[in-house]
Amino acid sequence: MELARLLARHPWVNSPVLFGREAGVTAEVPLLPANGHRWELEPFSWAAVEKKKVDVLFLATPHETSRSLAPEAMKRGVRVIDLSGAWRLRRKEHRAVYDFHDSDPQLAAGLMEQAVYGLPELHADRIAKAQLVANPGCYATSVILALAPLLRAKVVDRERGIISDSKSGVSGAGKEPSTRTHFVSVADNLSAYSVFGHRHVGEILEQLDLETTEFTFTPHLLPIPRGILSTIYLRLGQPATEAEVEACFREFYAGRPWVRIFTPPQLPQIQFSLYSNHCDIGFCLGPDRQRLVVISCVDNLLKGAAGQAVQNMNLMYGWNEQEGLN
Amino acid sequence: MELARLLARHPWVNSPVLFGREAGVTAEVPLLPANGHRWELEPFSWAAVEKKKVDVLFLATPHETSRSLAPEAMKRGVRVIDLSGAWRLRRKEHRAVYDFHDSDPQLAAGLMEQAVYGLPELHADRIAKAQLVANPGCYATSVILALAPLLRAKVVDRERGIISDSKSGVSGAGKEPSTRTHFVSVADNLSAYSVFGHRHVGEILEQLDLETTEFTFTPHLLPIPRGILSTIYLRLGQPATEAEVEACFREFYAGRPWVRIFTPPQLPQIQFSLYSNHCDIGFCLGPDRQRLVVISCVDNLLKGAAGQAVQNMNLMYGWNEQEGLN
Amino acid sequence: MELARLLARHPWVNSPVLFGREAGVTAEVPLLPANGHRWELEPFSWAAVEKKKVDVLFLATPHETSRSLAPEAMKRGVRVIDLSGAWRLRRKEHRAVYDFHDSDPQLAAGLMEQAVYGLPELHADRIAKAQLVANPGCYATSVILALAPLLRAKVVDRERGIISDSKSGVSGAGKEPSTRTHFVSVADNLSAYSVFGHRHVGEILEQLDLETTEFTFTPHLLPIPRGILSTIYLRLGQPATEAEVEACFREFYAGRPWVRIFTPPQLPQIQFSLYSNHCDIGFCLGPDRQRLVVISCVDNLLKGAAGQAVQNMNLMYGWNEQEGLN
Amino acid sequence: MELARLLARHPWVNSPVLFGREAGVTAEVPLLPANGHRWELEPFSWAAVEKKKVDVLFLATPHETSRSLAPEAMKRGVRVIDLSGAWRLRRKEHRAVYDFHDSDPQLAAGLMEQAVYGLPELHADRIAKAQLVANPGCYATSVILALAPLLRAKVVDRERGIISDSKSGVSGAGKEPSTRTHFVSVADNLSAYSVFGHRHVGEILEQLDLETTEFTFTPHLLPIPRGILSTIYLRLGQPATEAEVEACFREFYAGRPWVRIFTPPQLPQIQFSLYSNHCDIGFCLGPDRQRLVVISCVDNLLKGAAGQAVQNMNLMYGWNEQEGLN
Repeated sequence: MELARLLARHPWVNSPVLFGREAGVTAEVPLLPANGHRWELEPFSWAAVEKKKVDVLFLATPHETSRSLAPEAMKRGVRVIDLSGAWRLRRKEHRAVYDFHDSDPQLAAGLMEQAVYGLPELHADRIAKAQLVANPGCYATSVILALAPLLRAKVVDRERGIISDSKSGVSGAGKEPSTRTHFVSVADNLSAYSVFGHRHVGEILEQLDLETTEFTFTPHLLPIPRGILSTIYLRLGQPATEAEVEACFREFYAGRPWVRIFTPPQLPQIQFSLYSNHCDIGFCLGPDRQRLVVISCVDNLLKGAAGQAVQNMNLMYGWNEQEGLN
Repeated sequence: MELARLLARHPWVNSPVLFGREAGVTAEVPLLPANGHRWELEPFSWAAVEKKKVDVLFLATPHETSRSLAPEAMKRGVRVIDLSGAWRLRRKEHRAVYDFHDSDPQLAAGLMEQAVYGLPELHADRIAKAQLVANPGCYATSVILALAPLLRAKVVDRERGIISDSKSGVSGAGKEPSTRTHFVSVADNLSAYSVFGHRHVGEILEQLDLETTEFTFTPHLLPIPRGILSTIYLRLGQPATEAEVEACFREFYAGRPWVRIFTPPQLPQIQFSLYSNHCDIGFCLGPDRQRLVVISCVDNLLKGAAGQAVQNMNLMYGWNEQEGLN
Repeated sequence: MELARLLARHPWVNSPVLFGREAGVTAEVPLLPANGHRWELEPFSWAAVEKKKVDVLFLATPHETSRSLAPEAMKRGVRVIDLSGAWRLRRKEHRAVYDFHDSDPQLAAGLMEQAVYGLPELHADRIAKAQLVANPGCYATSVILALAPLLRAKVVDRERGIISDSKSGVSGAGKEPSTRTHFVSVADNLSAYSVFGHRHVGEILEQLDLETTEFTFTPHLLPIPRGILSTIYLRLGQPATEAEVEACFREFYAGRPWVRIFTPPQLPQIQFSLYSNHCDIGFCLGPDRQRLVVISCVDNLLKGAAGQAVQNMNLMYGWNEQEGLN
Repeated sequence: MELARLLARHPWVNSPVLFGREAGVTAEVPLLPANGHRWELEPFSWAAVEKKKVDVLFLATPHETSRSLAPEAMKRGVRVIDLSGAWRLRRKEHRAVYDFHDSDPQLAAGLMEQAVYGLPELHADRIAKAQLVANPGCYATSVILALAPLLRAKVVDRERGIISDSKSGVSGAGKEPSTRTHFVSVADNLSAYSVFGHRHVGEILEQLDLETTEFTFTPHLLPIPRGILSTIYLRLGQPATEAEVEACFREFYAGRPWVRIFTPPQLPQIQFSLYSNHCDIGFCLGPDRQRLVVISCVDNLLKGAAGQAVQNMNLMYGWNEQEGLN
């Protein structure tokens, strides 16, 4: 729904269409801050897609559905930005957590070769040309952006292990009502879940070229509606200064409008990036100048999902990366 | 579950049994502050009730189920404290909102004659002898206790109408996950619901002897787990002093351990009665000395449900009203 | 700070200046969702105001300060939009709650004659020409907009009294840390305050031409950061239909972009108007077709303060009322 | 205030006295769930202490004040349970964060020798005989209890480092209103603070015999009133089974009533230990059987402060450790 809102306001997007499973259905949009009204849903069909002359299809569908819709769209020359986990993972062992049942496994494998992981700060060039963009997971966005500069600069002692202790607001758990998302279960509480078993770990390992044993990930459910904060622990191979660490981040993200680097001792907080497409990154260096704590924040519904999808679309059509996201 | 916790700690209750619909089922008890563990549920059957020599049966069942279980229990000489709306209403027009389908309507009507509305501050004597106690609704408790002293003293200008603007935490909406109780729907929000149509209105009208047109009730869903605050508006028939109003409350509740009267300008807040069986009552008198705002707070899970049920049991067995509730 | 953010993004505002009491001070802006950074504050002086060629001065100052700054600004031909309570009240008895100490009472009285109450839905024409606009209080906005259509149409039985039970998020209580705004005091709580004595009552009475005894107002502090919901109770002089009531609202606000009328049974919720400049209005008509419950919601920092100030500026400069507010 | 509530209800405590800085002052007690009333404070003086025949003095004072009051109390034969950081630290380098200014450094050093760190699960025997008990910090309690069994069993690869990512509710930050504890700063937010510099680190290092470089601690401020959850990362020296890890915890805490061990995959959540004196401990073992994530929860106002103080008193007087804490 955040995506619908962003597209409706995007200056270069003409009459976006909101498809739903069924005809005539309208959806209430309580999550839209500026709009409590209802939106018309078109019943989805390929005929409708063609009639409406859809250029790019955003899929906010379960991963199984994305697995079957994306090939069909591409056959018709429609570009796809998929928000599910369907097309993010290259390695078979990581895909196991999704357990895909493709009707044509060879076609799927071929598409997987073409799919581009939609993290613009890492893959802008390839996204620009992509037919199929796999929009990253919300946790994965916060972790990969915090670690990529350091790992690419080869300053991390990977043998000592990297840990991400991540905390997410409840909208990351989806709209489906459940005991877990019941207000009384979440309020005045904090809980860890999926320790050593969260689905986003595969993306993180692949994008950062890490081995399973080198990375530990613990997600937690926060009593807030939205926002993610990841506290990441690692050890530098050699002692460094704060200035050197900050420079490493700033150089890597020079010219990237949606990543903000904080100068110590200022640190990101969830509030700072809420309702924005920014990924905020800050850090603390230990007194031994080797232990490093990196903190990154994203709004899980924007930079962690819909905002990043629009950013990808901007790149795919040669528009300014910030268009429609301010 | 609050009830199970209270009974487990009650000094005069021997080995309480927790019955459930199915055998061998155990229930997680995340609401119990002091206990995140699981409790054994006995599969419910009348044979089990007899075998366990149950004296009093607390029914925390849907009202339809209470409607059928209560007669069976009473046949067997088991006293019943029912926490549903099944036995609270005498007048047919009020019962319409529950739409009962009794297999033996005559038996049900007879039982209804015997049922006592379980508000100890109003009906202590009758509760002591009752076989069937209808434990009041949470909103109803907060409203009736705030109004009864003034209405009994006939100082209210009933023609001008009485309004209760009530606000409740989410546990009042039940444990069932739904879009309405999803954390993201409730957090950072407030909403009114069931305006002019809430089920507790009938109880309030009957207990206070009010006509439908004399009482307006608007419940709201608060972004907190538990607690109710009712802000009640009425007009006194004659100008009065603060001291007279306070005296009216204090005299009515003299000797009642679970009602606390606040002296102006101090007012109850939800926090003050949380995790206690108190109903807190305070008020503000307008500069015209006739407009009166009464504010009452209860913990909807204690004085508004389980705590009141235990208070009723205490009366039924001749124990101190505070037993097991501190 | 919301105002600073809005002005920074407004398409027709050139280089807004942020003045502060002291030189070189910078302010952290944690409330700005899209921006956790610091802003430069210019030290305030009339020389600076002139040098920067300020056309319109927004005053987000204590009312005493506004009382002394506004005359100075107007002498210099600078238009003023004041967000305090300094210039909202015509009647002396209402001003008593503010206890102004004007150095030149006659000048102040003269200015008060020229000041326009900045509620664009009521006073658009006068605001367009005003030199001094008194931006309304947040509660007052939510109450006045909900009542004006009915009172202007003379369909309210004023003798029976009008009640507004209003609930506000904590940002309405200001940025100053206090025991009352401490997280632990507010969370898991609800409390009423200033019953029969809130400062916004005067504005409401004056704008709606009500007598003191005709209106009762109870504000409550909600455990949420922002948003106001007012539940308003009144009695219609004659029985009416839902359609008639809705038509009364829709006709009054025809062409007004920032008021949304809800069709029963849909009701506004705080979430729907958060982060927007909308005032949402809905209602429930009682079964007697005379008792009416009106519910209105605003974001207290936008339509209740900064957004309305920008809306007023738009009118003062002949721009579209929605400019810079989407 | 939690302590006052616990002592007032403790079966073996006779007429506890609440001392305050000034005479005749009464304190509001909004944090007491069951009691929103006011308590009388006795003005503090040694004469009053003697007159009231105080056996044991609980100090909930700033550490500087505890540093000066404790020696005076002990001179008079009064036992002391100090809730500040004044007497917790043996090593000079850890005490630096408190910067004590003792009037008689030698006396203080002597007392420090006698002071016992009041963690009953580690030092029950010494606490029983102690004149001066230093009640542990809230974070320290959650971390030390989670790590002690594993470190004592020497199964941790200390060289690889131990990390505690801890999250606390706002009551841990004290009652003083500040920008940091303002509702609007905390709600819908999460922030890390005092990374590599929190005062409780010294206690943790001393109690667990760790070197500074072996332990990394990051506290976070949660948008909830109370409760702490620590997520602790370490590596076992040798691969182990879940059963072995669980046995290590269970054996260590056999017979200790206030520590609950969770069997995987169940994990503690903050809600489970709220309003109780329990420390809940659970864990997840990685697929490599060496990486271990330990999760521990306490209520920071009970096991993390007042509850633990009463538990210490129980030991000092030979009473059951659970007395007055259920």
